[in-house]
Amino acid sequence: MTESKDRRAFLKGSVAAGAAAVMAGAARAGGPDPLITDVQDWAAGLGEGVDETPYGLPIRFEADVVRRNVPWLTADPISSINFTPIHALDGTITPQGCAFERHHSGAIELSKEEYRLMINGLVDQPLIFSYADLERFPRENHVYFCECAANTGMEWAGAQLNGAQFTHGMIHNMEYSGIPLRTLLDEAGLGAAGDLGDKWVYVEGADASSNGRSIPMEKALDDVLVAFKANGEALRKEHGYPVRLVVPGWEGNMWVKWLRRIEVMDRPVESREETSKYTDTLADGTSRKWTWVMDAKSVITSPSPQAPITHGRGPLVITGLAWSGRGAITRVDVSRDGGISWEPARLAKEGESKALTRFYLDTTWDGEEMLLQSRAMDETGYVQPTKHMLREVRGENSIYHNNCIQTWWVKDNGEAENVEVS
Amino acid sequence: MTESKDRRAFLKGSVAAGAAAVMAGAARAGGPDPLITDVQDWAAGLGEGVDETPYGLPIRFEADVVRRNVPWLTADPISSINFTPIHALDGTITPQGCAFERHHSGAIELSKEEYRLMINGLVDQPLIFSYADLERFPRENHVYFCECAANTGMEWAGAQLNGAQFTHGMIHNMEYSGIPLRTLLDEAGLGAAGDLGDKWVYVEGADASSNGRSIPMEKALDDVLVAFKANGEALRKEHGYPVRLVVPGWEGNMWVKWLRRIEVMDRPVESREETSKYTDTLADGTSRKWTWVMDAKSVITSPSPQAPITHGRGPLVITGLAWSGRGAITRVDVSRDGGISWEPARLAKEGESKALTRFYLDTTWDGEEMLLQSRAMDETGYVQPTKHMLREVRGENSIYHNNCIQTWWVKDNGEAENVEVS
Repeated sequence: MTESKDRRAFLKGSVAAGAAAVMAGAARAGGPDPLITDVQDWAAGLGEGVDETPYGLPIRFEADVVRRNVPWLTADPISSINFTPIHALDGTITPQGCAFERHHSGAIELSKEEYRLMINGLVDQPLIFSYADLERFPRENHVYFCECAANTGMEWAGAQLNGAQFTHGMIHNMEYSGIPLRTLLDEAGLGAAGDLGDKWVYVEGADASSNGRSIPMEKALDDVLVAFKANGEALRKEHGYPVRLVVPGWEGNMWVKWLRRIEVMDRPVESREETSKYTDTLADGTSRKWTWVMDAKSVITSPSPQAPITHGRGPLVITGLAWSGRGAITRVDVSRDGGISWEPARLAKEGESKALTRFYLDTTWDGEEMLLQSRAMDETGYVQPTKHMLREVRGENSIYHNNCIQTWWVKDNGEAENVEVS
Repeated sequence: MTESKDRRAFLKGSVAAGAAAVMAGAARAGGPDPLITDVQDWAAGLGEGVDETPYGLPIRFEADVVRRNVPWLTADPISSINFTPIHALDGTITPQGCAFERHHSGAIELSKEEYRLMINGLVDQPLIFSYADLERFPRENHVYFCECAANTGMEWAGAQLNGAQFTHGMIHNMEYSGIPLRTLLDEAGLGAAGDLGDKWVYVEGADASSNGRSIPMEKALDDVLVAFKANGEALRKEHGYPVRLVVPGWEGNMWVKWLRRIEVMDRPVESREETSKYTDTLADGTSRKWTWVMDAKSVITSPSPQAPITHGRGPLVITGLAWSGRGAITRVDVSRDGGISWEPARLAKEGESKALTRFYLDTTWDGEEMLLQSRAMDETGYVQPTKHMLREVRGENSIYHNNCIQTWWVKDNGEAENVEVS
């Protein structure tokens, strides 16, 4: 097999760089290696039993792999953001316990018994659903990414935050279980709405902010889910327990948590969250709005400022994440010289539509400095742009929808910094 | 679309059974419905901020959705088993925090710094890998189920445990990230082993039990992973931190945790865990051994004894899980009359090889008693057998590899019981 041969070629020399050859005679000739021949503490007695923790948490050695707030980012931690520790994760699934969250008035506690969802407006029969009602409708399961429109937003002004968790961690990727929104709209009946081509739904949450957003009917009838589980289990409080909206590929602010009402309307509401927020001001003073789709994007998660190279020269795994709100990722390229030359990365699996794709570049590193970049391409043929290209179109005043190519300057000591290349 | 029409037909009448029609004039005419027009506590103020819990846990309302021990099952909780709360989950991913675990001498605490993996025996160059060494090899990501060979084992003697969590919960399904074992064996070199057709690897863990198991070289070179992440994050302590073996489709006991040594051998070891344990005695007194593969199996998770029907007549979602150690699930049928008649269930996604598949039957229930069963078929054409068929072949003394069709007796009040049908 060609791949197997390639791998062997790649791995040649890694014994010297990494794994130690076993000195077969060491124990006999000299003193024993305590790591090999002694009975270690952990093998000398019983470990922990199964009844001590009904629900498990990470081992204490991983205490730094947690979602993190940036205190200065918003006025109050209650109206703030946590970032997924993407620099420390592998694969594609984000555990709920460390998944990005954003609240506009804090995470509320709402029981299934008290939960209600209203569908009203231009429907044949306005309805109120209890949680138990929702459990009786046909469900679907899909893995989708949820990315904040402001992810990477601080970087518009230049390389600012040191760490993939902070520059790109306003994203998570979970297996959502829920009911297609079209099923519930069908239940209320859309006959009263007439021509659906120009209709909207307005969705709002049960928290004080209500976080209302307008969604075109075409999207509402496409792939939007009224979801109650993520990664198999109930949504966590901070992810909208018991019910949130899932709007695949579109900005996270529209994924309304603690979903309480869906109104069918003949126009968008132009709410706070879609006028003064979640719009960008262009150079000519006009606003870019209805910018719902998250365009193709990628980031190298390791090496990166929080995940430096700590080993010597030789084999190196470069890895990262890519995603697109328009469909599946089809290709990711990696550059080690700031975008002059590119190598195709290996996708861990065929890209899934509107879900994170893990990529790897299995390579070698001889201690040279690198300007590491990744560049994603999606099934529409769209290629992730440079920051320079984005600024040319969007000007200097944007906050949202920064999907530019990220650069990490990896130094000869393996440490990495967030930098900008011209 | 036909499916859309079917759904509408299915949903007809569910307003009466479930969701309440909104009384448009109620607020004006009589008193307001407090659920609709008052400002509820949760909408009247701020919720919880993002900086209070760096790593999240389920909301308190889900406190009963936890992995559970059965105290009488083994001599000591330290050498015991926890069961995944499959009756309360949806989708396919199992969160690590509530994923089935089994220890033979308890969960040990082993840091990445102290971790070593030795490959020795019939190899060109015995090697010892540190954790940092392992991170330099090319990785793969796969979702696989891990099922204890004893899952459903108590049911050989008859319907005993009341709840899918206890009859079928010795299973989890996670996205594993790790290095193909063949890559590490290649690194040590298999030239010294000669003809690989009759060679074995012996794998053992760093805990006191060591839990050694022999694996044929053909499997070792196929899809076995040396894994360090599950669902994106580090393995939990109880799942083998920092490194466990993943042996796709094969019994969970072989998925050695805290993996410390892999020896290439010209014969199996015939260890405790593959002679006195993890074998079954047949009627003629001989032992069934090397029964590694987990055959196709399924179970209805809801309704079930821990997840009764609590709503009235009308729409009902019947759901469950199916899996096969020989490949992908291609079909699941559901019976409501104890196996006399069958209806095809809807697979939530195309079956993935050696991973859990979620199935649904979107149906109606008119309050009649049901003998609910599910029957899985995999890509080899194998069909999940009845318990009667299994007993005919395996006799009355088996413990392991019970993949029989499960029956829940759903009563007219919606409660369910574990029963056996002839």
